Amino acid sequence: MTAEIICVGTELLLGDILNTNAQFLSRELAELGISVMHQHVIGDNPARLKELVLQAKSRSDLLVFSGGLGPTEDDLTKETVAEAFGDTLAFDEGEWQKIIDFFARTNRRPTPNNRKQAMCPTVGHKLINDHGTAPGAWFEDADGHCAALMPGVPREMKAMWAEQVRPILLKRQNCTIHSRTLRVLGGESAIASKVAPLFEAANPTAAIYCKTGECEIRVTARETTEQAAEAACNARIAEFKEILGAAAYDVDVPALEYTVVRALREHGLHAAAAESCTGGMIAERLTNVPGSSEVFGYGFVTYAEAAKQKLLGVDAAVIEKYNVVSGPVAAAMAFGAARESGAELAVGITGLAGPGGALPGKPVGTVYLAGADTRTDTGYLMRLTLGGYQDRQIIRTRAALYALDMLRRMALGLDVPDSMRFTPETADRDLDI
Amino acid sequence: MTAEIICVGTELLLGDILNTNAQFLSRELAELGISVMHQHVIGDNPARLKELVLQAKSRSDLLVFSGGLGPTEDDLTKETVAEAFGDTLAFDEGEWQKIIDFFARTNRRPTPNNRKQAMCPTVGHKLINDHGTAPGAWFEDADGHCAALMPGVPREMKAMWAEQVRPILLKRQNCTIHSRTLRVLGGESAIASKVAPLFEAANPTAAIYCKTGECEIRVTARETTEQAAEAACNARIAEFKEILGAAAYDVDVPALEYTVVRALREHGLHAAAAESCTGGMIAERLTNVPGSSEVFGYGFVTYAEAAKQKLLGVDAAVIEKYNVVSGPVAAAMAFGAARESGAELAVGITGLAGPGGALPGKPVGTVYLAGADTRTDTGYLMRLTLGGYQDRQIIRTRAALYALDMLRRMALGLDVPDSMRFTPETADRDLDI
Repeated sequence: MTAEIICVGTELLLGDILNTNAQFLSRELAELGISVMHQHVIGDNPARLKELVLQAKSRSDLLVFSGGLGPTEDDLTKETVAEAFGDTLAFDEGEWQKIIDFFARTNRRPTPNNRKQAMCPTVGHKLINDHGTAPGAWFEDADGHCAALMPGVPREMKAMWAEQVRPILLKRQNCTIHSRTLRVLGGESAIASKVAPLFEAANPTAAIYCKTGECEIRVTARETTEQAAEAACNARIAEFKEILGAAAYDVDVPALEYTVVRALREHGLHAAAAESCTGGMIAERLTNVPGSSEVFGYGFVTYAEAAKQKLLGVDAAVIEKYNVVSGPVAAAMAFGAARESGAELAVGITGLAGPGGALPGKPVGTVYLAGADTRTDTGYLMRLTLGGYQDRQIIRTRAALYALDMLRRMALGLDVPDSMRFTPETADRDLDI
Repeated sequence: MTAEIICVGTELLLGDILNTNAQFLSRELAELGISVMHQHVIGDNPARLKELVLQAKSRSDLLVFSGGLGPTEDDLTKETVAEAFGDTLAFDEGEWQKIIDFFARTNRRPTPNNRKQAMCPTVGHKLINDHGTAPGAWFEDADGHCAALMPGVPREMKAMWAEQVRPILLKRQNCTIHSRTLRVLGGESAIASKVAPLFEAANPTAAIYCKTGECEIRVTARETTEQAAEAACNARIAEFKEILGAAAYDVDVPALEYTVVRALREHGLHAAAAESCTGGMIAERLTNVPGSSEVFGYGFVTYAEAAKQKLLGVDAAVIEKYNVVSGPVAAAMAFGAARESGAELAVGITGLAGPGGALPGKPVGTVYLAGADTRTDTGYLMRLTLGGYQDRQIIRTRAALYALDMLRRMALGLDVPDSMRFTPETADRDLDI
């Protein structure tokens, strides 16, 4: 089956809004095994719209629309598509009542124009919108060409897709689908080179999406039963995990901090963070997880040298001797944060996020990250070199990601190279790396 | 002049990446007074591409491409467009040398395929790419139809647009353009209702873009001289500021924290933040501004009650009496942060970001924000009601925005309603709001 996506809206042509609907629909259609040949954006112009619809219909099986269902005169998408599919529209009393009720709930009254929104296909059928005023429409002609018309508001479109359109298409594709998303630390090329063959398979499919410092691998299995799809999906995820090891940190979570909070909670542990170059980003990410207050109580944003001494007890002589951006200072920050907060685990981070401030032998992007585990009085130190990115925000984001991963590894007791290990007693000399 | 945007790339059709290029080019073309009639996304398929190019060329003056300039066999965009414009391609020794040098700098060698990328128009001309391997191409036929081919990588495309394509189009439009962006706190409908007539004007144009808790108003003037365009732009910005008052906080800055850091620096002031529900977001935003270390040294993420007592000296009895989410606690946090850090200005923030944790009379989204100005021993308190958003991240982001604005207002000495003012001595009783 082939499809074209048609987004209707002048605001898209003006660049006023970003077209996230096209990406969403493309991904979803790809998962269903439907090939998207074109994406189009077009304004509310009936002549141009008609030309496009006839053309798209002549070469593709399915047209998926978002937008153009509004009440104004020039919103003629539904009328135009109905004509192209040899269908007509009829006034639907039930939908009109829903529109009246919707307006009443928000203390408004519909205008006569809104009646247009209650017009529904007579050969095809309406698509129910439980999240806004206008119903969508499904058209189908004798040759089996179909069109799904959905609202342009992403929230309404996504709900209508999931509740109404996707089930119709799943049935036609005669399958069920199960997807899971594996999150992996590292860059796309490093990850892809390890698991390239797994991306070749036709079913389950795997797609990789990059974010700063990590990637998502989305695995999608299509089978005739939900059970078989889920099993195929899980088996493929297991293969990825086997190859990628501990870098593959979790499945179906929004971000690393969710994994960290859960690991802490499951092990009855608490964490603290002492941040210089990341300036609160580690704390911000951890506290964005609902329920994180059980495991995270203290964050120290010690941006100034005096703050590191006063809040964390970092020795002024250590700063003087090794520089504030150094392994010994990161180590003292981590153990200071653990001591002051009473948390079992802590991280300390100090570095040069740039653009200015480079030191001899320490270019912009040099970051020292220390982990402190007070249960064993063991520390872990990493020197990160993130200067290749030359972007303050990216350097900070990557540094925070490493810090969250350090917390995860300490909480889960994962293997850490011996070269990273230190004890607070010998910290100073050993950590001058 | 009318235009169509054509983005070439299978990864866009699969939904693997979000098409930000289309939005960028649409905005830029709109600013130049060029009407975008269609946006298209198409794969690397020569037959379909040819059909689309001929069609687009038959109805629009200008075709703007991104993507399809890669070295692989199926990247045939340049060849296809050349043919449609009656042009041919010739090997360009200079571009080939640049490709060899580019690879050498990254320790790689070009493959024979890369030679394709050095092919340039013979009637039209190349577009220089100073940020990647492949040059772009400009085609033009006898009827005055034009095509600009640029890389798909956003960074390379944007640079080529600004340095090569935009100047050609500006010259053809016989004008210069000047744009400035005003940033305004508040929601779109509230702002738009105050300044609606200013959005109607044809020149300078004004467009509003919404973000969480604030909007950008982009004003663009087209005139025959740069001086006239700049003057027209500034005059319109002044009109917006006149109507919107202090909510219009700055022009041509990336975000509110840049304004805050500059205000602090210009007034020789320092700020500190004591954060509970925002969990480090205020500190993170301030420290993301290059040079912020001059004005911001201490951030206290006191997520736990014990942390508020220990780090900020908040009286346990006050927490007990008013609850930890209360005006008196926010006030004590702000003055505690100022005292512990030595900063002249500080903010304290405590609230319920949800999803759980609602208290009697304090639903999710209730946030207390206090400002402390130690120069005058004056405090300012706001009770925010952000629960309508029902989203932890949005509640936190809006709360942080209010806190940054509180710092801005204190630093600049802007008027604050008397009802918000308090003195530390009377804080407890007066702030139980």
